[in-house]
Formats: sequence, C-alpha cells, structure tokens
Amino acid sequence: MKIIVDAFGGDNAPLAPICGAIEAHAAYGVDIILTGDESVIQKVASENNLSLNGITIVHAPDVFTNDDQPSTIRSKAKANTSMAVGLNLLKNGGGDAFVSAGNSGALGAGAMFLVKRIKGIQRVAFAPVMPNSESYFMLIDSGVNTDLRPKALQQFAMMGSIYMNKVMGFKNPRVGLANVGTEEHKGDALRQETYTLLKNTPSINFIGNVEGRDIPLDGADVVVCDGFTGNMILKTYEGVAIAMMKKIKGVFTKNFKTKLAAACVMKEMKELKKSMDYDEVGGAPVLGCAKPVFKAHGSSNAKTIRNAIRVTIEYVKNDVIASITEALKDIPETENEGE
Amino acid sequence: MKIIVDAFGGDNAPLAPICGAIEAHAAYGVDIILTGDESVIQKVASENNLSLNGITIVHAPDVFTNDDQPSTIRSKAKANTSMAVGLNLLKNGGGDAFVSAGNSGALGAGAMFLVKRIKGIQRVAFAPVMPNSESYFMLIDSGVNTDLRPKALQQFAMMGSIYMNKVMGFKNPRVGLANVGTEEHKGDALRQETYTLLKNTPSINFIGNVEGRDIPLDGADVVVCDGFTGNMILKTYEGVAIAMMKKIKGVFTKNFKTKLAAACVMKEMKELKKSMDYDEVGGAPVLGCAKPVFKAHGSSNAKTIRNAIRVTIEYVKNDVIASITEALKDIPETENEGE
Repeated sequence: MKIIVDAFGGDNAPLAPICGAIEAHAAYGVDIILTGDESVIQKVASENNLSLNGITIVHAPDVFTNDDQPSTIRSKAKANTSMAVGLNLLKNGGGDAFVSAGNSGALGAGAMFLVKRIKGIQRVAFAPVMPNSESYFMLIDSGVNTDLRPKALQQFAMMGSIYMNKVMGFKNPRVGLANVGTEEHKGDALRQETYTLLKNTPSINFIGNVEGRDIPLDGADVVVCDGFTGNMILKTYEGVAIAMMKKIKGVFTKNFKTKLAAACVMKEMKELKKSMDYDEVGGAPVLGCAKPVFKAHGSSNAKTIRNAIRVTIEYVKNDVIASITEALKDIPETENEGE
Repeated sequence: MKIIVDAFGGDNAPLAPICGAIEAHAAYGVDIILTGDESVIQKVASENNLSLNGITIVHAPDVFTNDDQPSTIRSKAKANTSMAVGLNLLKNGGGDAFVSAGNSGALGAGAMFLVKRIKGIQRVAFAPVMPNSESYFMLIDSGVNTDLRPKALQQFAMMGSIYMNKVMGFKNPRVGLANVGTEEHKGDALRQETYTLLKNTPSINFIGNVEGRDIPLDGADVVVCDGFTGNMILKTYEGVAIAMMKKIKGVFTKNFKTKLAAACVMKEMKELKKSMDYDEVGGAPVLGCAKPVFKAHGSSNAKTIRNAIRVTIEYVKNDVIASITEALKDIPETENEGE
C-alpha cells in the first residue's frame, strides 16, 4: 500500500508531516510518498537526524496556504503546490490514498474537482470523527457544502454509516439528523424533507433528529447536517472545550491548595484533554471522493500525522469506496447537482 | 413596576417560580403577579410556609407543557394556560413585563402573536445571554426563526446591541455574524448579504464574521444568526459543557489521590460550573416584542427565577423597547415579512 502525504500541510509543516510519515512507515510497513519541495524536505530531515530511507519524495515547489482561496486549488497557479501535486498523483494512480493537514476547504475542493467524486455521489463531505462523552461520532458534513438538497444528506448518512462501521468498528451505527427538536416536523424544509428520506432508507439505522445538546452526549454515531451547520457545531464544540480547559487551568493555579490538587490529577486531566481532542480520535475523511482523501488537523504534530496515516490505512484496506459504490445501488439515483 | 410571573413554567414549577417571585418582591420591591391555578399556588405556598403577602394571583387553571405544539399558544384551547393568561395580561396593560420558565417555542410564538411585535420589527428573537471564557455574550436568534431575510438579522444585531448595552452594561458591544470563516465572502447567500448590510449599519459596532470556535472565546458580545443555527450553537454549547463536567467528575472520583484533589478544588469547581451555566448569567429576553417578555431556563430554581426577575426589571427600567423603536428610524424600513 502506498500513502501520499502532503509534507507542507498544517501549522507544523514540514517537520511534523515528515516525522509522522517516517514513523508510520516504520510502524505499519506502508510505502510513503511525500509531496513538497525536495531540497527543503532533505534539509529538514538532515537537520533533525531523520532518515528518509524507504520514503519517496515527489517534488512540488509551492505551498497552498490557509490564506489562499480554496477553489483555486484547481487553478494552474496552484498546480505545483504540495497539495495539488498529491491530489493529482492520487488521481493518476500514483498512490492509494492522500493525507494532508493543509487548508480544509482546498482539500475538499481538490477532492471534488481534481480526484473527482464516486459516480452517483452528489457532493463530497468533510466528515470529522469527534469525541463525545462515551466514545466517538462522525459529523457529516462539516464544512464543504452550504446549499444542499435532501438527497445529498441521504448520501452523507449512507457514507458515514459505512465509514463508522468499516473503519471505526461501530456495529449498525445510529444515524441522527442534526435538528432543533426531536419531532419529525421540526426544522426548516431541508430538515423535514431529509427526515422523510432517511426514514425510508432501510440500509441505514436512522434514529431520528438529534438536538445540539445530545450530540456531545452520545446522541448518535453519525450526525448528518449541511456543511454550514456542521462547521458551526464542529467549531463551537472545539471552542467550548478550549474555553473550559482554560477555566479549569484558572481553577488549578488559583492558590497553594488548588495547585496541590492539580499535582494529584495532572495525569488524568491530560488524558481528559486528549479525549476531547479530535486530532487524537480519527481525523476527517473526505467522503464521496473516488479515492481516499484524509484530512489531519491543522495543528497536527508528528503523532497526529502518524495516527491519520494509520486510520487512512484502514480506510484503504476495508475498501470503503467499493462499499459506498455498492450501497448507492440501494438508494434511488438522482442527477448530479454538483460542479 | 409590576412583573407578571408564570407560576407554572419550568421543570420545578410551581414551587420555584412562587419562591423566586416572593424573593424578588422582597429584594427589589416590585409588585408581582403570579399566573396559574390559584388554589394550587395557595396550597404550595402554605405547605412551604411561604407568605403571599403583596403578591397578586391571576387565576389560570391550565398549563402549557413542553409536549404542546408551540404555535397552539394562540389557540382557544390554550387560552387558559398560565403562559397565555400572562401574555394577554401583559398585552392588555396588566403588568410591565412577563417572565416564564415554560416552553421556549410557545413563549416566542406567544410574544409574536399575542403581545405582538414592535412596529417595524420583522421577527421576534429568542436571545439568551450566555457565558464565555471572559464574561457574557448574546446569541440572537437561537430558536424562534428558521427562514429569515438579511433585514431581520440586521434588526437582531441592532436589538442585541441595545440590550447588551442598556441591560448588561456593555459599552459599544461588538457585533459578530456567526459564519464558517472570517472573510466577507464566506457562507451562504444569507450570510453574504447580511454581512454587507451589517457593514453598512453605522449604529452598530460590526466586527465582521465570527467562527464557532471563537464564540466561546469572547469573539463577540452579540452573535447574530438565524434561529436554526443559533439553536444548534446554543445546545451544542450546553452539551459540551455537560459532557466535560461529566468527564471531570470521572477524573475526580477515580481513586484516593484524585478524590483528595477534588476536596481541594470543590469550591472552585462549583464556581466554574456556575460560570458556565447560562441560568446564572442573564436568561433570554424575547427581543422585538412590543413589551418585555423574558425566558428563564427550563430547569430554573427559585434563585434563577429571582435573577430573571432582576434582569427583567433592568429591561423595563432602561426602556429597551423605546430605544429599539427609536433605533429603527436609523435603519431603512422594510415591509413586514412575519405572520
């Protein structure tokens, strides 16, 4: 198996992707292709005493930054960025999957327009696997798509179920529709029509609407929503966790007694922080793309990149894309809305 | 000043509203009218040794429950509920404001259709004041409206600014538009058009888009959004805080050492929990209604109700509604979309 890794994606690039890729190569025995400026990769590896033995580099002199407009990923001007080179390499059969911690929007747009969709899929979705009070859940979509029709959400539900089952090991994942109340008639027209559609999709385990409050409390294994709503949920989720950790830090540093308490629970609090950190959990596959594309968090360190590669290996090995293609036969076809 | 209080709203009714009203009467010297079943109120007061001296009861034999359809608040069948009686009393000049911990949707619908809107306001908004990492912010709208035009969001921004200034004491409140990115072009058509409108509204301090992640981290004092998005943010916010407190509890009860730590920080952790609890902060005015309507949290206890009454007194005293009416002159008129 050959995993392509964007050496210049994320806040800690290129060191974190290079390290993570080397670690994954050693730990999982997969071939790794790094995309990015070859001389810089060689220099960083040498400065950090890292051996690139067994790692292939595909030269890409430019970097796609977070300030670049995501849609320009398909432009000629960005064709030599480490992300575009990686995506095109994947498309042309140069590897089995692509992992990047770079610009999320660009990765979604690149998956959609460079690698292309699975035939019959309306939209690709950015689908992070996130922590909840009990274990994990998938939020699909959370950032790529704003204006959607119910059929696209039905496909998200199906793709999310397959991924959570095949890659994350959930049996018969519970699918919930993110909504402002649990009753069938709740929400806007998109929610109401999607509810009806999901209810009548036998291949998924639809449990009804799930409210915001129940999402972090293990209300569903796959939470289905449009990208605007999903992005607001995802980022509010992160923000509240950060705000609370900040307040807890304030508690523990208040006085001698609380500092003593901090010393007693330091290990456990670190574990807690880790358990709320979605980097550690499962990253975010870009589902609906014709080949596996995987987004690692922008602030990824070497370990996060290694984890992302590990999950991506499962994504490839369990042939999620073949299962999605197969499952599409069970839900009525619609014309493509995308492009 | 006369405050009408729904004695049968919320999970702890009627005891909590009765107690809270009595406490507020004593503490703030305002007249209180309780709406609800008179004999039950008398019985509960007597059983709990509470004196109803100085409290007026307006009899309302029925209760509007959380299972009732919010829109039925205007129906004949629900006309004798403590909520509808309170709203109609307010409308007819029987009091200066109405406070309820009952069904949020019904209170919003009742404010809109029984008490009616301020002339020129398109929609009333449910606008909770919530905790963030530094102090408070208002989320407007968070539950009443789903399909909105930009003008309604502009009015929300204006009303939220006035309330946060006059009632919560924020100087020149920073208004942010909840969106999936900070750049002007981000989000769907509603967000893009609203951005342009807010940018060109000199009477508010518009600071641009605010992402979900920055909302809990004091990104803005007034966060403007449609009701669907706001409800998802509000409830995710609550859910993550609950999930984290649950995990922290797990940490502290793990073993002897962590239990010792818990004993050292118990007081501080309780304060932390309180600081993340929006009951304690400021409740939720229903803005845009022609008279002050205020929502206390469904799980309100006596203290929360008393706090809600205290905030409502400020709402009346500072004549927020006159300020909103005045400010409407500064933003171009539009036809009413509501009803």
